[in-house]
Amino acid sequence: MTQGNIFVVTAPSGAGKTTLVAALLAADANVQLSISFTSRAPRAGEVDGKDYRFVDRAAFEAMIAAGELLEYAEVYGNYYGTSLAWINEARQSGRDILLEIDTQGAEQVRKLFPDAIGLFVLPPSLEVLEQRLKNRGKDAEDVIARRMAEARAEIGHAAEFDYLIVNEHIDEAVRDIVGIVRAERLRQPRQAKRHAALLASLKG
Amino acid sequence: MTQGNIFVVTAPSGAGKTTLVAALLAADANVQLSISFTSRAPRAGEVDGKDYRFVDRAAFEAMIAAGELLEYAEVYGNYYGTSLAWINEARQSGRDILLEIDTQGAEQVRKLFPDAIGLFVLPPSLEVLEQRLKNRGKDAEDVIARRMAEARAEIGHAAEFDYLIVNEHIDEAVRDIVGIVRAERLRQPRQAKRHAALLASLKG
Repeated sequence: MTQGNIFVVTAPSGAGKTTLVAALLAADANVQLSISFTSRAPRAGEVDGKDYRFVDRAAFEAMIAAGELLEYAEVYGNYYGTSLAWINEARQSGRDILLEIDTQGAEQVRKLFPDAIGLFVLPPSLEVLEQRLKNRGKDAEDVIARRMAEARAEIGHAAEFDYLIVNEHIDEAVRDIVGIVRAERLRQPRQAKRHAALLASLKG
Repeated sequence: MTQGNIFVVTAPSGAGKTTLVAALLAADANVQLSISFTSRAPRAGEVDGKDYRFVDRAAFEAMIAAGELLEYAEVYGNYYGTSLAWINEARQSGRDILLEIDTQGAEQVRKLFPDAIGLFVLPPSLEVLEQRLKNRGKDAEDVIARRMAEARAEIGHAAEFDYLIVNEHIDEAVRDIVGIVRAERLRQPRQAKRHAALLASLKG
Protein backbone atom coordinates (compact mmCIF):
# COMPACT_ATOMS: atom_id res chain seq x y z
CA MET A 1 0.00 0.00 0.00
CA THR A 2 1.43 3.37 -1.02
CA GLN A 3 1.46 5.81 1.90
CA GLY A 4 -0.92 8.74 1.69
CA ASN A 5 0.22 12.35 1.36
CA ILE A 6 0.21 14.78 4.25
CA PHE A 7 -1.46 18.12 3.45
CA VAL A 8 -1.17 21.11 5.74
CA VAL A 9 -3.82 23.80 5.24
CA THR A 10 -3.15 27.15 6.89
CA ALA A 11 -5.03 30.44 6.71
CA PRO A 12 -5.68 33.54 8.76
CA SER A 13 -9.05 33.27 10.49
CA GLY A 14 -11.74 34.64 8.19
CA ALA A 15 -10.06 33.39 5.00
CA GLY A 16 -12.66 30.65 4.68
CA LYS A 17 -10.47 27.65 5.46
CA THR A 18 -13.14 25.69 7.35
CA THR A 19 -15.68 25.93 4.48
CA LEU A 20 -12.99 25.02 1.98
CA VAL A 21 -11.82 21.97 3.90
CA ALA A 22 -15.40 20.79 4.46
CA ALA A 23 -16.02 20.98 0.71
CA LEU A 24 -12.82 19.06 -0.02
CA LEU A 25 -13.78 16.30 2.42
CA ALA A 26 -17.23 16.05 0.80
CA ALA A 27 -15.69 15.86 -2.71
CA ASP A 28 -12.83 13.46 -2.02
CA ALA A 29 -13.40 10.36 0.11
CA ASN A 30 -9.68 9.58 0.13
CA VAL A 31 -8.89 12.56 2.37
CA GLN A 32 -8.92 12.07 6.12
CA LEU A 33 -9.04 15.13 8.35
CA SER A 34 -6.79 15.05 11.39
CA ILE A 35 -8.76 15.99 14.50
CA SER A 36 -6.68 18.17 16.80
CA PHE A 37 -6.45 17.78 20.56
CA THR A 38 -7.20 20.96 22.48
CA SER A 39 -7.34 22.13 26.08
CA ARG A 40 -9.90 24.79 25.16
CA ALA A 41 -13.49 24.36 26.39
CA PRO A 42 -15.98 23.27 23.69
CA ARG A 43 -17.98 26.12 22.10
CA ALA A 44 -21.72 25.76 21.63
CA GLY A 45 -22.40 23.02 19.07
CA GLU A 46 -18.86 21.61 19.01
CA VAL A 47 -18.65 17.85 19.29
CA ASP A 48 -15.80 15.93 20.93
CA GLY A 49 -14.04 13.69 18.39
CA LYS A 50 -15.52 15.62 15.46
CA ASP A 51 -14.45 19.25 15.90
CA TYR A 52 -11.67 18.57 18.40
CA ARG A 53 -10.67 16.05 20.99
CA PHE A 54 -11.23 18.03 24.16
CA VAL A 55 -8.87 17.24 27.04
CA ASP A 56 -7.97 19.20 30.15
CA ARG A 57 -4.77 21.19 30.49
CA ALA A 58 -3.00 18.57 32.63
CA ALA A 59 -3.76 15.78 30.13
CA PHE A 60 -2.49 17.95 27.26
CA GLU A 61 0.74 18.73 29.11
CA ALA A 62 1.23 15.01 29.80
CA MET A 63 0.99 14.37 26.01
CA ILE A 64 3.61 17.07 25.38
CA ALA A 65 5.92 15.55 28.02
CA ALA A 66 5.52 12.07 26.51
CA GLY A 67 6.44 13.37 23.01
CA GLU A 68 3.10 12.23 21.61
CA LEU A 69 2.43 15.39 19.61
CA LEU A 70 3.56 16.04 16.06
CA GLU A 71 3.02 19.74 16.61
CA TYR A 72 1.33 21.87 19.20
CA ALA A 73 0.83 25.54 19.88
CA GLU A 74 -0.64 27.70 22.60
CA VAL A 75 -3.07 30.21 21.11
CA TYR A 76 -4.89 32.75 23.27
CA GLY A 77 -4.05 30.67 26.33
CA ASN A 78 -5.29 27.33 24.94
CA TYR A 79 -3.30 24.37 23.65
CA TYR A 80 -3.90 22.83 20.22
CA GLY A 81 -1.96 19.84 18.92
CA THR A 82 -1.77 16.83 16.57
CA SER A 83 -1.12 13.23 17.62
CA LEU A 84 1.95 11.80 15.89
CA ALA A 85 0.90 8.17 16.38
CA TRP A 86 -2.45 8.83 14.74
CA ILE A 87 -0.84 10.44 11.66
CA ASN A 88 1.59 7.58 11.15
CA GLU A 89 -1.16 5.01 11.46
CA ALA A 90 -3.64 6.83 9.25
CA ARG A 91 -1.27 7.37 6.32
CA GLN A 92 -0.33 3.67 6.25
CA SER A 93 -3.89 3.02 5.08
CA GLY A 94 -3.07 4.93 1.86
CA ARG A 95 -5.46 7.78 2.63
CA ASP A 96 -4.26 11.37 2.51
CA ILE A 97 -4.10 13.18 5.83
CA LEU A 98 -5.15 16.80 6.09
CA LEU A 99 -4.03 19.02 8.96
CA GLU A 100 -5.69 22.39 9.62
CA ILE A 101 -3.00 24.23 11.58
CA ASP A 102 -1.30 27.62 11.88
CA THR A 103 2.07 28.64 10.43
CA GLN A 104 3.85 27.73 13.68
CA GLY A 105 2.43 24.17 13.54
CA ALA A 106 3.13 23.93 9.80
CA GLU A 107 6.79 24.61 10.45
CA GLN A 108 6.95 21.79 13.02
CA VAL A 109 5.23 19.39 10.56
CA ARG A 110 7.69 20.26 7.76
CA LYS A 111 10.61 19.38 10.06
CA LEU A 112 9.24 15.90 10.80
CA PHE A 113 7.67 15.27 7.37
CA PRO A 114 9.69 17.16 4.74
CA ASP A 115 7.38 15.75 2.04
CA ALA A 116 4.28 17.32 3.62
CA ILE A 117 2.50 19.59 1.14
CA GLY A 118 1.62 23.06 2.39
CA LEU A 119 -1.42 25.04 1.21
CA PHE A 120 -1.98 28.62 2.32
CA VAL A 121 -5.39 30.23 1.88
CA LEU A 122 -5.54 34.01 1.35
CA PRO A 123 -8.52 36.36 1.52
CA PRO A 124 -9.00 38.53 -1.60
CA SER A 125 -8.28 41.68 0.46
CA LEU A 126 -7.81 42.93 4.03
CA GLU A 127 -11.19 44.66 3.83
CA VAL A 128 -12.95 41.41 2.94
CA LEU A 129 -11.12 39.63 5.76
CA GLU A 130 -12.22 42.24 8.31
CA GLN A 131 -15.79 42.16 6.99
CA ARG A 132 -15.92 38.37 7.26
CA LEU A 133 -14.69 38.50 10.87
CA LYS A 134 -17.32 41.14 11.71
CA ASN A 135 -20.09 39.19 9.94
CA ARG A 136 -19.48 36.16 12.12
CA GLY A 137 -20.74 38.43 14.91
CA LYS A 138 -19.24 36.31 17.63
CA ASP A 139 -16.16 38.38 18.43
CA ALA A 140 -15.78 41.75 20.19
CA GLU A 141 -14.03 44.70 18.50
CA ASP A 142 -10.75 44.15 20.33
CA VAL A 143 -10.76 40.44 19.44
CA ILE A 144 -11.28 41.36 15.77
CA ALA A 145 -8.40 43.85 15.93
CA ARG A 146 -6.19 41.15 17.46
CA ARG A 147 -7.22 38.65 14.78
CA MET A 148 -6.40 41.18 12.04
CA ALA A 149 -2.90 41.71 13.46
CA GLU A 150 -2.51 37.94 13.77
CA ALA A 151 -3.68 37.56 10.13
CA ARG A 152 -0.99 39.97 8.86
CA ALA A 153 1.66 38.01 10.76
CA GLU A 154 0.40 34.67 9.41
CA ILE A 155 0.29 35.99 5.81
CA GLY A 156 3.96 36.98 6.20
CA HIS A 157 4.71 33.22 6.18
CA ALA A 158 2.79 32.46 2.95
CA ALA A 159 6.02 32.02 0.95
CA GLU A 160 6.89 28.96 3.06
CA PHE A 161 3.96 27.04 1.55
CA ASP A 162 3.85 25.03 -1.69
CA TYR A 163 0.52 26.39 -2.94
CA LEU A 164 -1.40 29.65 -2.52
CA ILE A 165 -5.17 29.73 -2.90
CA VAL A 166 -6.89 33.12 -3.07
CA ASN A 167 -10.40 32.53 -1.72
CA GLU A 168 -12.37 35.17 -3.57
CA HIS A 169 -15.10 32.94 -5.04
CA ILE A 170 -15.68 29.88 -2.88
CA ASP A 171 -16.61 27.55 -5.77
CA GLU A 172 -13.36 28.40 -7.57
CA ALA A 173 -11.33 27.98 -4.37
CA VAL A 174 -12.97 24.57 -3.81
CA ARG A 175 -11.92 23.49 -7.31
CA ASP A 176 -8.44 24.74 -6.48
CA ILE A 177 -8.02 22.65 -3.33
CA VAL A 178 -9.63 19.56 -4.91
CA GLY A 179 -7.30 19.91 -7.91
CA ILE A 180 -4.18 20.24 -5.78
CA VAL A 181 -4.97 17.15 -3.72
CA ARG A 182 -5.73 15.16 -6.86
CA ALA A 183 -2.62 16.36 -8.72
CA GLU A 184 -0.27 15.57 -5.84
CA ARG A 185 -1.43 11.93 -5.97
CA LEU A 186 -0.49 11.77 -9.64
CA ARG A 187 3.15 12.81 -9.23
CA GLN A 188 5.43 10.39 -10.95
CA PRO A 189 7.38 8.84 -8.03
CA ARG A 190 4.12 8.17 -6.16
CA GLN A 191 2.34 6.78 -9.22
CA ALA A 192 5.36 4.68 -10.22
CA LYS A 193 5.15 3.00 -6.80
CA ARG A 194 1.37 2.58 -6.90
CA HIS A 195 1.38 1.17 -10.44
CA ALA A 196 4.70 -0.72 -10.30
CA ALA A 197 3.17 -3.96 -11.58
CA LEU A 198 1.39 -2.20 -14.45
CA LEU A 199 4.55 -0.36 -15.50
CA ALA A 200 6.62 -3.54 -15.42
CA SER A 201 4.07 -5.37 -17.59
CA LEU A 202 3.78 -2.47 -20.05
CA LYS A 203 7.50 -2.23 -20.60
CA GLY A 204 7.45 -5.94 -21.25
CA MET B 1 1.39 39.51 -16.88
CA THR B 2 2.65 36.25 -15.39
CA GLN B 3 3.91 33.86 -18.07
CA GLY B 4 1.85 30.73 -18.67
CA ASN B 5 3.07 27.22 -17.91
CA ILE B 6 4.27 24.84 -20.59
CA PHE B 7 2.70 21.38 -20.39
CA VAL B 8 4.00 18.46 -22.38
CA VAL B 9 1.57 15.55 -22.80
CA THR B 10 3.03 12.30 -24.06
CA ALA B 11 1.49 8.85 -24.51
CA PRO B 12 1.84 5.75 -26.62
CA SER B 13 -0.72 5.78 -29.41
CA GLY B 14 -3.93 4.15 -28.19
CA ALA B 15 -3.57 5.49 -24.62
CA GLY B 16 -6.34 8.01 -25.26
CA LYS B 17 -4.25 11.18 -25.28
CA THR B 18 -6.24 12.94 -28.00
CA THR B 19 -9.59 12.47 -26.21
CA LEU B 20 -8.03 13.56 -22.92
CA VAL B 21 -6.50 16.71 -24.36
CA ALA B 22 -9.74 17.61 -26.17
CA ALA B 23 -11.63 17.32 -22.86
CA LEU B 24 -9.05 19.48 -21.08
CA LEU B 25 -9.31 22.18 -23.75
CA ALA B 26 -13.10 22.13 -23.43
CA ALA B 27 -12.92 22.40 -19.62
CA ASP B 28 -10.21 25.03 -19.29
CA ALA B 29 -10.24 28.10 -21.55
CA ASN B 30 -6.82 29.16 -20.26
CA VAL B 31 -5.06 26.30 -22.04
CA GLN B 32 -3.83 26.83 -25.57
CA LEU B 33 -2.90 23.81 -27.67
CA SER B 34 0.25 24.11 -29.73
CA ILE B 35 -0.42 23.04 -33.30
CA SER B 36 2.50 21.07 -34.71
CA PHE B 37 4.00 21.52 -38.14
CA THR B 38 4.23 18.32 -40.16
CA SER B 39 5.47 17.19 -43.54
CA ARG B 40 2.98 14.33 -43.56
CA ALA B 41 0.02 14.49 -45.98
CA PRO B 42 -3.35 15.31 -44.35
CA ARG B 43 -5.53 12.28 -43.52
CA ALA B 44 -9.22 12.34 -44.41
CA GLY B 45 -10.96 14.98 -42.30
CA GLU B 46 -7.82 16.67 -41.02
CA VAL B 47 -7.83 20.45 -41.26
CA ASP B 48 -4.74 22.60 -41.83
CA GLY B 49 -4.19 24.94 -38.86
CA LYS B 50 -6.43 22.86 -36.60
CA ASP B 51 -4.97 19.34 -36.58
CA TYR B 52 -1.56 20.29 -37.95
CA ARG B 53 0.08 22.90 -40.07
CA PHE B 54 0.83 20.94 -43.20
CA VAL B 55 3.97 21.96 -45.08
CA ASP B 56 6.07 20.12 -47.65
CA ARG B 57 9.33 18.41 -46.79
CA ALA B 58 11.51 21.19 -48.23
CA ALA B 59 9.69 23.86 -46.18
CA PHE B 60 10.06 21.77 -43.02
CA GLU B 61 13.79 21.30 -43.62
CA ALA B 62 14.16 25.06 -44.14
CA MET B 63 12.57 25.62 -40.69
CA ILE B 64 15.02 23.13 -39.14
CA ALA B 65 17.96 24.86 -40.82
CA ALA B 66 16.78 28.29 -39.60
CA GLY B 67 16.54 27.01 -35.99
CA GLU B 68 12.82 27.85 -35.86
CA LEU B 69 11.75 24.62 -34.18
CA LEU B 70 11.62 24.01 -30.45
CA GLU B 71 11.59 20.29 -31.11
CA TYR B 72 11.11 18.06 -34.09
CA ALA B 73 11.17 14.39 -34.85
CA GLU B 74 10.94 12.16 -37.87
CA VAL B 75 8.35 9.45 -37.29
CA TYR B 76 7.62 6.78 -39.90
CA GLY B 77 9.32 8.96 -42.49
CA ASN B 78 7.40 12.17 -41.70
CA TYR B 79 8.56 15.27 -39.84
CA TYR B 80 6.65 16.70 -36.85
CA GLY B 81 7.78 19.83 -34.99
CA THR B 82 6.89 22.80 -32.80
CA SER B 83 7.58 26.46 -33.60
CA LEU B 84 9.73 28.11 -30.93
CA ALA B 85 8.62 31.66 -31.81
CA TRP B 86 4.97 30.70 -31.44
CA ILE B 87 5.53 29.17 -27.95
CA ASN B 88 7.39 32.21 -26.68
CA GLU B 89 4.73 34.57 -27.97
CA ALA B 90 1.80 32.52 -26.73
CA ARG B 91 3.02 32.13 -23.15
CA GLN B 92 3.58 35.89 -22.83
CA SER B 93 -0.20 36.23 -22.96
CA GLY B 94 -0.41 34.36 -19.65
CA ARG B 95 -2.14 31.34 -21.14
CA ASP B 96 -0.77 27.86 -20.57
CA ILE B 97 0.67 26.12 -23.60
CA LEU B 98 0.08 22.43 -24.16
CA LEU B 99 2.29 20.34 -26.43
CA GLU B 100 1.24 16.86 -27.58
CA ILE B 101 4.58 15.28 -28.45
CA ASP B 102 6.54 12.04 -28.10
CA THR B 103 9.27 11.27 -25.54
CA GLN B 104 11.97 12.36 -27.97
CA GLY B 105 10.32 15.79 -28.38
CA ALA B 106 9.66 16.03 -24.64
CA GLU B 107 13.36 15.66 -23.97
CA GLN B 108 14.17 18.52 -26.35
CA VAL B 109 11.52 20.74 -24.69
CA ARG B 110 12.92 20.03 -21.20
CA LYS B 111 16.37 21.17 -22.34
CA LEU B 112 15.07 24.54 -23.56
CA PHE B 113 12.37 24.99 -20.89
CA PRO B 114 13.48 23.23 -17.70
CA ASP B 115 10.27 24.40 -15.99
CA ALA B 116 8.05 22.62 -18.55
CA ILE B 117 5.71 20.18 -16.81
CA GLY B 118 5.61 16.68 -18.25
CA LEU B 119 2.50 14.44 -18.17
CA PHE B 120 2.65 10.85 -19.36
CA VAL B 121 -0.56 8.97 -20.11
CA LEU B 122 -0.58 5.19 -19.62
CA PRO B 123 -3.12 2.61 -20.78
CA PRO B 124 -4.48 0.35 -18.00
CA SER B 125 -2.83 -2.70 -19.64
CA LEU B 126 -1.04 -3.84 -22.81
CA GLU B 127 -4.13 -5.84 -23.78
CA VAL B 128 -6.35 -2.75 -23.62
CA LEU B 129 -3.79 -0.79 -25.63
CA GLU B 130 -3.72 -3.44 -28.36
CA GLN B 131 -7.51 -3.66 -28.37
CA ARG B 132 -7.85 0.10 -28.73
CA LEU B 133 -5.44 0.13 -31.67
CA LYS B 134 -7.38 -2.70 -33.35
CA ASN B 135 -10.74 -1.01 -32.70
CA ARG B 136 -9.64 2.08 -34.57
CA GLY B 137 -9.66 -0.25 -37.58
CA LYS B 138 -7.50 2.02 -39.64
CA ASP B 139 -4.17 0.24 -39.29
CA ALA B 140 -2.95 -3.06 -40.74
CA GLU B 141 -1.67 -5.90 -38.50
CA ASP B 142 1.98 -5.05 -39.09
CA VAL B 143 1.37 -1.36 -38.29
CA ILE B 144 -0.32 -2.38 -35.02
CA ALA B 145 2.62 -4.64 -34.13
CA ARG B 146 5.01 -1.75 -34.84
CA ARG B 147 2.90 0.63 -32.71
CA MET B 148 2.92 -1.88 -29.82
CA ALA B 149 6.73 -2.10 -29.92
CA GLU B 150 6.90 1.69 -30.12
CA ALA B 151 4.50 1.92 -27.13
CA ARG B 152 6.76 -0.28 -24.97
CA ALA B 153 9.74 1.90 -25.85
CA GLU B 154 7.83 5.12 -25.06
CA ILE B 155 6.58 3.74 -21.73
CA GLY B 156 10.21 3.06 -20.79
CA HIS B 157 10.60 6.86 -20.56
CA ALA B 158 7.63 7.41 -18.22
CA ALA B 159 9.91 8.09 -15.23
CA GLU B 160 11.22 11.24 -16.95
CA PHE B 161 7.80 12.88 -16.59
CA ASP B 162 6.40 14.83 -13.62
CA TYR B 163 2.97 13.20 -13.59
CA LEU B 164 1.58 9.81 -14.61
CA ILE B 165 -2.07 9.42 -15.57
CA VAL B 166 -3.47 5.91 -15.96
CA ASN B 167 -6.31 6.22 -18.46
CA GLU B 168 -8.59 3.41 -17.37
CA HIS B 169 -11.82 5.40 -17.00
CA ILE B 170 -11.85 8.43 -19.26
CA ASP B 171 -13.91 10.65 -16.90
CA GLU B 172 -11.44 10.02 -14.07
CA ALA B 173 -8.47 10.65 -16.36
CA VAL B 174 -10.06 13.92 -17.51
CA ARG B 175 -10.39 15.04 -13.89
CA ASP B 176 -6.74 14.09 -13.42
CA ILE B 177 -5.43 16.24 -16.24
CA VAL B 178 -7.74 19.17 -15.38
CA GLY B 179 -6.58 18.97 -11.74
CA ILE B 180 -2.89 18.91 -12.64
CA VAL B 181 -3.15 21.96 -14.90
CA ARG B 182 -5.11 23.84 -12.25
CA ALA B 183 -2.76 22.86 -9.41
CA GLU B 184 0.37 23.87 -11.29
CA ARG B 185 -1.03 27.40 -11.63
CA LEU B 186 -1.44 27.59 -7.86
CA ARG B 187 2.18 26.85 -6.97
CA GLN B 188 3.51 29.42 -4.60
CA PRO B 189 6.22 31.15 -6.67
CA ARG B 190 3.79 31.59 -9.57
CA GLN B 191 0.94 32.80 -7.35
CA ALA B 192 3.25 35.11 -5.38
CA LYS B 193 4.11 36.83 -8.68
CA ARG B 194 0.52 36.93 -9.93
CA HIS B 195 -0.81 38.31 -6.62
CA ALA B 196 2.18 40.45 -5.62
CA ALA B 197 0.04 43.54 -5.00
CA LEU B 198 -2.48 41.60 -2.90
CA LEU B 199 0.26 39.99 -0.79
CA ALA B 200 1.97 43.34 -0.20
CA SER B 201 -1.33 44.90 0.92
CA LEU B 202 -2.23 41.97 3.19
CA LYS B 203 1.08 42.02 5.00
CA GLY B 204 0.51 45.73 5.51
